[in-house]
Amino acid sequence: MTNWWESIGVTWSSDTGVVEERRVDRSGWAPVGRPAAVLFPRDADEVARVLRGATSARTVVVPRGAGTALTGATTAGEGALVLDLSRMDRIVAIDPDDGTAVVEPGVITADLDRAAGKLGLRYAPDPASFEISTIGGNIATNAGGLRCAKYGVTRDAVLGLEVVLASGERIRTGRSTLKGVSGYDLTGLIVGSEGTLGVVVEATLRLRPLPLSTTTLAATFDDIALAAAAAVALTASGVQPAMAELLDAATLRAIGTRPDAGALLIVQTDAAGEELVAEKVLAETARTVEVSRDPTALLAARRQALPAIERLGRPLIEDIAVPRSRLAEAVRAVERIAARHGVPIFTLSHAADGNLHPIIVADPAATTIPPEVQRAADDIFTLALDLGGTLTGEHGIGTLKRAWLAREIGPVSHDLQRRIKALFDPDNILNPGKAI
Amino acid sequence: MTNWWESIGVTWSSDTGVVEERRVDRSGWAPVGRPAAVLFPRDADEVARVLRGATSARTVVVPRGAGTALTGATTAGEGALVLDLSRMDRIVAIDPDDGTAVVEPGVITADLDRAAGKLGLRYAPDPASFEISTIGGNIATNAGGLRCAKYGVTRDAVLGLEVVLASGERIRTGRSTLKGVSGYDLTGLIVGSEGTLGVVVEATLRLRPLPLSTTTLAATFDDIALAAAAAVALTASGVQPAMAELLDAATLRAIGTRPDAGALLIVQTDAAGEELVAEKVLAETARTVEVSRDPTALLAARRQALPAIERLGRPLIEDIAVPRSRLAEAVRAVERIAARHGVPIFTLSHAADGNLHPIIVADPAATTIPPEVQRAADDIFTLALDLGGTLTGEHGIGTLKRAWLAREIGPVSHDLQRRIKALFDPDNILNPGKAI
Ligand SMILES: Cc1cc2nc3c(=O)[nH]c(=O)nc-3n(C[C@H](O)[C@H](O)[C@H](O)COP(=O)(O)OP(=O)(O)OC[C@H]3O[C@@H](n4cnc5c(N)ncnc54)[C@H](O)[C@@H]3O)c2cc1C
Ligand SMILES: Cc1cc2nc3c(=O)[nH]c(=O)nc-3n(C[C@H](O)[C@H](O)[C@H](O)COP(=O)(O)OP(=O)(O)OC[C@H]3O[C@@H](n4cnc5c(N)ncnc54)[C@H](O)[C@@H]3O)c2cc1C
Repeated sequence: MTNWWESIGVTWSSDTGVVEERRVDRSGWAPVGRPAAVLFPRDADEVARVLRGATSARTVVVPRGAGTALTGATTAGEGALVLDLSRMDRIVAIDPDDGTAVVEPGVITADLDRAAGKLGLRYAPDPASFEISTIGGNIATNAGGLRCAKYGVTRDAVLGLEVVLASGERIRTGRSTLKGVSGYDLTGLIVGSEGTLGVVVEATLRLRPLPLSTTTLAATFDDIALAAAAAVALTASGVQPAMAELLDAATLRAIGTRPDAGALLIVQTDAAGEELVAEKVLAETARTVEVSRDPTALLAARRQALPAIERLGRPLIEDIAVPRSRLAEAVRAVERIAARHGVPIFTLSHAADGNLHPIIVADPAATTIPPEVQRAADDIFTLALDLGGTLTGEHGIGTLKRAWLAREIGPVSHDLQRRIKALFDPDNILNPGKAI
Repeated sequence: MTNWWESIGVTWSSDTGVVEERRVDRSGWAPVGRPAAVLFPRDADEVARVLRGATSARTVVVPRGAGTALTGATTAGEGALVLDLSRMDRIVAIDPDDGTAVVEPGVITADLDRAAGKLGLRYAPDPASFEISTIGGNIATNAGGLRCAKYGVTRDAVLGLEVVLASGERIRTGRSTLKGVSGYDLTGLIVGSEGTLGVVVEATLRLRPLPLSTTTLAATFDDIALAAAAAVALTASGVQPAMAELLDAATLRAIGTRPDAGALLIVQTDAAGEELVAEKVLAETARTVEVSRDPTALLAARRQALPAIERLGRPLIEDIAVPRSRLAEAVRAVERIAARHGVPIFTLSHAADGNLHPIIVADPAATTIPPEVQRAADDIFTLALDLGGTLTGEHGIGTLKRAWLAREIGPVSHDLQRRIKALFDPDNILNPGKAI
């Protein structure tokens, strides 16, 4: 007996290697069972055929970009079909005059940014994974990044989408213009929905000009509270950081840079008059301040952080956000959580947004999340909510934080979200059990 | 017999003057019949009581901020209740360290901006109506404004909402942090929904630092095509205008400023290195370029435009958006539409966004939209769609553009939007017949 997807003219594979690689994401969380096959559609039509078939046959479909999600969002269990969109990777158009790009979902984020760069533009949202993640995955998770402090997250760069619904029907959401408010914002609903409401087959994105002049400042501090306070003081003095990355002492020691500093704050500014003000504000409480006009030079430490931590064990990367003024308090509390559960935790923060990544490092040999790591993670979630924050600043809910979601958003909202899911996908075939 | 809303402890009035004033918005479109009463809730609880009562009794409720909508969105017909939110006008908190404000919906937009300004911050979205519109109305219409070219529309400034649903249940959407992606984006769904999905009773908003240094340039051109091309050339040279307002020749003559110029382009920049580049780029094709460091000086012409046009008759303000590179083509086509139907049309544009406001002027004595004005408006809508644009860049659909919406978004998407409406408001009591 052949399976229905073998005869719809879409490339597929059920080879063990192909399937095994695509049943997990980067969360380190393994689903139960093994997907039936991986499908490699080439265009929107092929995606529509897959979803029509899946709806008739009630087969679960898990859309997949690069599988770099940190939340279990891209895991596929027993009998599911993985819809691998990585071969739909054309940059359809870049229009510098309109300030827009049209892309297929499988385009690698950094490839789009480089293509735009050749025309003096950039695609602003830059998750740290931007060399390996896809635009489709970024959209489905509403990815954030370093430049989001000033220029917004993925949502803010998405003008319009073409989406295939679970039924196989195709819709266009949004528009191709920079502004537009016709009807309800379905674009926003699809962004961040983790492949549970529809499959993005094309996106129209906003590009921005490359800043004419960027200044990067790297300041070391005696402790994290001073560094976090300095980030707040910047805004108070009228500086709007284009980037504000904060590394704690544990991370600095892991990298081996400024190992005796209590914290490192890396700030970029691109607005008129900010350069001198920023240097002055940082110098007030910093131990040292370095300044560079090369936008990448002082960022090296930030880029090395995760690889350095990965050398120490298997990282579980958390992602809470708190009101910006409570950042230092949150980092401190995370240090206490690390001590309480006897697990090493390294914290990187997007300081201007109050978004923290406490990275808990587990034994590299562990195949599931060790209980003390899970307890530390749970304490981090409680902390976020106690401080008036959220479970996830940019990575999403996936499966790992699902149990916590209702606590954050409340039962009425949760129920409404479930009903939206049912409206888009009545047979619950699209990435069920994720996001909400 | 008393009406149900008379005994729920919410201030109400059915005085003719009070009701008459609140059955219309600024579109000049009059609904059929007369609302039963106007209710003036003081807090979220009172709003919830009204909506619970309205759901049981199947009474139509039209939420209302300041009634400045230009689309018929705020019109209330026979037997409806107007829910006037203007007395819920507290700025609950402004936190400069967190970069956030919490406000009730009736706060006047400019009042929030002024209160933020005292702390060195600003509320970026500034519709031209910002001295008279409310934050609740801005949210429900996803209002744009002059500063949106760089800093985004209302959607981009809304972090979280408290919303009363048609059932009277209350939900919080979004978050109070600057970033967050927990669950589906209900905040985005409520923004721009024109009071059809729920009533906004509180909003948490992002504030940004006031720019340290802003340069304003006002350039006159021989014709609109040169001016529009200059706006595009700015981006090509790496300038990201914080504002780019374009006035056509008809508007300049109505104001009486630069009356012999073909077009006036007013640009603001606040990024490092942009000032000189912007001046150089404009000087290449402009007739004259004035430069000022005072952010309001050269904007006077823009602020005078609408009052000047209003002196000539009754304006019907349209609001299409087109790909930015087609702006001049669109303005030219609007001139031909004016000639064809024998109606005067003045065009103001947010040039960096490709958002045009063709203002058709009708006889001040007209009580309904005259047929030639309607025909010109219809031609403008067709033009927008033909150029790959949208019916509305920032004002919304309301009732006036409803007939056109399905043509823009297509039947599948339209149906989905109707089902979302039914999910939020099964009895169709909330501002029925608007937005979708
Ligand atoms: C080293 C590292 C650093 C990271 N840094 C960041 C960071 O700074 N900021 C950040 O936000 N995240 C970060 N992440 C997380 C991850 O990279 C992002 O969530 C990214 O957006 C996922 O993209 P992807 O292509 O890998 O998506 P996948 O993991 O393949 O998919 C993610 C989700 O999107 C869905 N999906 C994928 N494509 C589509 C589509 N076309 N249509 C519908 N649904 C789809 C999937 O079903 C899944 O639910 C990081 C991850 C790693 C490993
Ligand atoms: C001179 C002038 C200039 C303008 N310039 C601009 C401009 O530059 N950009 C722009 O975008 N618009 C502009 N407008 C249009 C208008 O001002 C905006 O749409 C504004 O956002 C409406 O605010 P309001 O408080 O008057 O809302 P209202 O007209 O009272 O209501 C608008 C819609 O929102 C709903 N609503 C109001 N409050 C709530 C609430 N609390 N909860 C749920 N629903 C609610 C209403 O039901 C209605 O559907 C202009 C209007 C005028 C008259």
